[in-house]
Amino acid sequence: MKSILDFKVKVLQKDGSKNSLLDNVAVEEPLEIRLSLEGFTLRVATTMRTPGNDEELALGFLWSEGVIREIESIQSVKRSSDPRLEVSENVIIVDLSAGTQVDWRRLDRRTDVQSSCGICGRQSLQILKNLELSQPKGAPWPEDLSLGTLSEQLSGSQNMFQKTGGVHASGLFNYDGNLICLREDVGRHNALDKVVGWGLDQKLLPAENTILLVSGRISFELVQKALLAGIPNLVGIGAPSSLAIELAKEFDLTLLGFLRENSVNVYAGEWRVGQL
Amino acid sequence: MKSILDFKVKVLQKDGSKNSLLDNVAVEEPLEIRLSLEGFTLRVATTMRTPGNDEELALGFLWSEGVIREIESIQSVKRSSDPRLEVSENVIIVDLSAGTQVDWRRLDRRTDVQSSCGICGRQSLQILKNLELSQPKGAPWPEDLSLGTLSEQLSGSQNMFQKTGGVHASGLFNYDGNLICLREDVGRHNALDKVVGWGLDQKLLPAENTILLVSGRISFELVQKALLAGIPNLVGIGAPSSLAIELAKEFDLTLLGFLRENSVNVYAGEWRVGQL
Repeated sequence: MKSILDFKVKVLQKDGSKNSLLDNVAVEEPLEIRLSLEGFTLRVATTMRTPGNDEELALGFLWSEGVIREIESIQSVKRSSDPRLEVSENVIIVDLSAGTQVDWRRLDRRTDVQSSCGICGRQSLQILKNLELSQPKGAPWPEDLSLGTLSEQLSGSQNMFQKTGGVHASGLFNYDGNLICLREDVGRHNALDKVVGWGLDQKLLPAENTILLVSGRISFELVQKALLAGIPNLVGIGAPSSLAIELAKEFDLTLLGFLRENSVNVYAGEWRVGQL
Repeated sequence: MKSILDFKVKVLQKDGSKNSLLDNVAVEEPLEIRLSLEGFTLRVATTMRTPGNDEELALGFLWSEGVIREIESIQSVKRSSDPRLEVSENVIIVDLSAGTQVDWRRLDRRTDVQSSCGICGRQSLQILKNLELSQPKGAPWPEDLSLGTLSEQLSGSQNMFQKTGGVHASGLFNYDGNLICLREDVGRHNALDKVVGWGLDQKLLPAENTILLVSGRISFELVQKALLAGIPNLVGIGAPSSLAIELAKEFDLTLLGFLRENSVNVYAGEWRVGQL
C-alpha cells in the first residue's frame, strides 16, 4: 500500500498562465479496526488514515479510547486475510486473549459521554470520556536539552510532509534529545495514535521523561491521548484550545504552543521547562 | 457562552528570558446533539466545538451524516432546558416532525461502513458512508470573479483566527464574489457543518453556483460534505488528500488546493475555473 500517490495537477498563475505537473499527494484511505475475542469478531471503528504502521494505529486507537488497558491482553494484531473482502489490507484484526474484559460501551459514540455527567463543563474534564487519567511522570528537562534542536530534528525527518505538504507529524523525544518515534498521517489523531501504538508494542508506556512534538494545533483529545500514554510534555507548532490547557493544568502536563524559532508559549507545567 | 478565553501564558525567548502575557485562546467545549421524535429522545453525537452557531452545527452535522434528508422534517432546533443538566447550553435538541423516517443505523460508528462494501478501495467511494451523492450544479466562474479577491475577503473576516491563531474557517461565496457565510471553529469539520446548517436554515441548499473556501487541508470528508450540500467548488489553503481528489473527480466537483497569492493547484473540475 502506498502512502503517497502522484496526481496530474494544473497550476494556475496570477497572470493567467497554466502549467501541468505531477503533484505528490498524501494517501487517505479507510482503515477498519476489528476486535476478536473468543471466536467473536466485532467491527469497532473505521478511521481515515494514511496507510503505513496500521497495526500501531489500531493498537494506539484502542488504547486511547480506553478499550484495551494492558498490552498483555493483545494476542496478535494482523491484517485480515478474508478473501470476501475487496481490499483486505484495509482491515486490521486485533485478537484479544481469552478472558479479557472489554468495555464495549466505549465503542458506541452515542455513549461517548456518560449521561451522569450532564455534559460536563470545565469542572470535571476527565469524565468527558470517563477515562482514568493520572499525572504523568516527568522530571524537569535536562539542562543541555534544547527545544529548538528537537524541532529541527522533527522538521528534518518529516519525509512525507516534505513531499506532499499534506500530513501531520507526531514525534516522541527522550530526555537525551533523541527522536525515538516519528509518525506522519493525514489525521493529527492518527499520527499520535501510531506513536502510542509503537510505544505499547515496545513496552515503553507510560512514556516517562519524554517530550511529544506535534505539527499542528493541540486539541483536548491530543492532551487526553498524551496523558493516557503517560507522556509528560506536549509541544505544538500551533495553538492549544481552552480545554486542552485546562486538562493539561488539571493533570500537571507541561503544555507548550506556538513553537517558533525564537519563542514558544508555555501554557501549563512551567516547572519542567528548560531552554528553547 | 464565550468563544474566546484569556489565559495567562509565559513566553519563553531564545535568549532564556521570559515574559507573561494574556493570550486569547479559542474555546473548545463538547456539544451534545440529541434527536427528538414522537416523544422519544436519543443522544446521537458529541462533538468538540467552539461555542457559537450551535443550532447550525447540529443541523449541518445531521445533514452531512445523512440522518436528515429534508429541512421540512425539522420542527425545531433548540437548546436543552433540562434543569438536571450541569451545562445545558451544551446540549442541542433537534425535534423532528412526526412520521419522519430516520436511518438510526447511521448514528452508530460501528456501522459507518456497510459490511457489503468490504472496506471499499478507490472503486466505490460513495459506498464509504453509503450516502447518495450526486453531481453539484455549477456554471463556470463568471469572468470578473477572481479567486484572490475571495481569499482576501476571507482572511479579512476571520476575526476569531486573528485573535487566537487557533481556529479553522469555512467561507461560502456566491458567483458575485460576495462572502455569504463565514464560520470559524477549532474543528475543520464543524466550521463546514455550521455553514451547511446555515444554508439549510436559509433554504439555500443545494448551493448552486457557490465557491467554498476552507482554511486548512481538504480531506475526503470535506468533499463529501460539500457534495451533500450541492456546493460545486471547493478551494483549500492546504493540500487535498488522495481520496478527496478521487471523490471530486468522480462527481465533477471543482477542487483546488494550495491557494497562494500567486498560484493555485487545480485538482479536478478545471472547466469551471476562471482567474486567480
